[in-house]
Amino acid sequence: MTPLALAVDIGGTKIAAGLVAPDGTLSERRRTPTPAAPAILRAVFELARPLVKRAAICGIGTAGTVDALGRIASATDLLTGWAGTDVKGAAESALALPTVVLNDCHAAGAAEARVGAARDARTALIVAIGTGIGGAVCVEGRVQAGVSGTAGSIGHLPAPTDAGVRCSCGALDHIEAHAAGPAIERAYLEATGQALPLAEIGRLGSHVITDAATLMGRVLAGAANLIDPDAIVIAGGVSMLGPALLRPMKAAYRAEALPGPSAAPLLPASLGEDAGLVGAGLEALSHLENGS
Amino acid sequence: MTPLALAVDIGGTKIAAGLVAPDGTLSERRRTPTPAAPAILRAVFELARPLVKRAAICGIGTAGTVDALGRIASATDLLTGWAGTDVKGAAESALALPTVVLNDCHAAGAAEARVGAARDARTALIVAIGTGIGGAVCVEGRVQAGVSGTAGSIGHLPAPTDAGVRCSCGALDHIEAHAAGPAIERAYLEATGQALPLAEIGRLGSHVITDAATLMGRVLAGAANLIDPDAIVIAGGVSMLGPALLRPMKAAYRAEALPGPSAAPLLPASLGEDAGLVGAGLEALSHLENGS
Repeated sequence: MTPLALAVDIGGTKIAAGLVAPDGTLSERRRTPTPAAPAILRAVFELARPLVKRAAICGIGTAGTVDALGRIASATDLLTGWAGTDVKGAAESALALPTVVLNDCHAAGAAEARVGAARDARTALIVAIGTGIGGAVCVEGRVQAGVSGTAGSIGHLPAPTDAGVRCSCGALDHIEAHAAGPAIERAYLEATGQALPLAEIGRLGSHVITDAATLMGRVLAGAANLIDPDAIVIAGGVSMLGPALLRPMKAAYRAEALPGPSAAPLLPASLGEDAGLVGAGLEALSHLENGS
Repeated sequence: MTPLALAVDIGGTKIAAGLVAPDGTLSERRRTPTPAAPAILRAVFELARPLVKRAAICGIGTAGTVDALGRIASATDLLTGWAGTDVKGAAESALALPTVVLNDCHAAGAAEARVGAARDARTALIVAIGTGIGGAVCVEGRVQAGVSGTAGSIGHLPAPTDAGVRCSCGALDHIEAHAAGPAIERAYLEATGQALPLAEIGRLGSHVITDAATLMGRVLAGAANLIDPDAIVIAGGVSMLGPALLRPMKAAYRAEALPGPSAAPLLPASLGEDAGLVGAGLEALSHLENGS
């Protein structure tokens, strides 16, 4: 019988769970709102428990940086109190399944690399542009988490500007401070005096989108010059702006990438909001194959 | 008996050859000036032939981008006519040894990752700051060459500035255009009207070194946020400037790297000018182990 993974995706606003097959098929999906941090694990276990019997292993994707032992090394403001939680230890004792814990951006990237837009790539760079900018580097379908679980943090590369905009991490002029959704909204407000939501700014075809997309494309080119991937996948809410964003981003990418990396396609993500759940399940199943 | 690799390092000004043991020990080192491109292979084979009998495999590090088949995909202006050469094919037929060909920066990085400054690191980022800025990403001692052989090109990441300085690759404001040796000399000339060699600028303690080092440290932090290495190794002629360069570079790095990567040590390279030769040999030997 094909082994299934019990997959869990813990985000700032909701927790999702389901069963994931080796081909990425998701079944028995269920959801609950994310409670305050001390109640998160209880909510996860309630949601997941009915699925335990049908699973061979558990994969949990979660917001925050995950260390090599499956604990939360640091978390965003959305999940105050989540840092320090031993997610792997708690899940293995509550669910009685071997458990793999990884960052939610890494999980979504793994899904795109294994069964999504980059499924034919040996090395894939997945970039999620939304409220922040995150990402994942996947080699042969496996997430490269890095020594501290931080790898793939492409939002925290310098943008080619000295405008002096403060990034969420405290540094100046990281690309997240210029090309994430709130950054584009702030640039529009500064340029026009008008506060509009991102989708509306997109409909107006404002130059602030071109500017952000150009900086993002240049940073993507730099990242590609460093890791030389087969494919780059663009995910996240901001990518929903479509050609107004993607066309200048691709043009800047092609202009700045070296001859080899410039051939890498920039592909739209294909798995949507299930990517995190599917990737957590597939990463867990890959550990099962390797007996680790 | 321990297998030895016949190692060759083809640079813009000289060709070196020697025998490399699995522990990185180099023996029988010899050198010749690099001739014009059509004569390079003949010079390599003359230099290397006396060593063939004692070697089980051959490793060749060379300037230029090396494709997956061991051919030169592109070369610098220093080696006009070298692009397009089938180095692997020519070496295997002339020397009758299985041959591994890789970029010279990749070879030097592999040496630092296996037996040099980063020998204890799982993931190492090696950066060579000289006439240009190159590098290598090594995971478990193996170079990650990327799909086109371009990976590790950290000189072609955007610097956090819009000064508008043209990079050797044609793009604007890549870090190579701000922190390589010629860039520092040019900045000094622009600031003072005086043309001085780099070492002299270093002795004077000019602020142009601090400025270049700060941009370099910020870009290194961005690269580390993306790949999250255990260690970063600084090599190349510009690193000989010592603390005047390294102190502001490290300060900028610590300030901009995320909490995990900020703990990675920035280490001086330990193998000097033999790194390329040693790394070419070790990479070849690692293929022998893997039977590939």
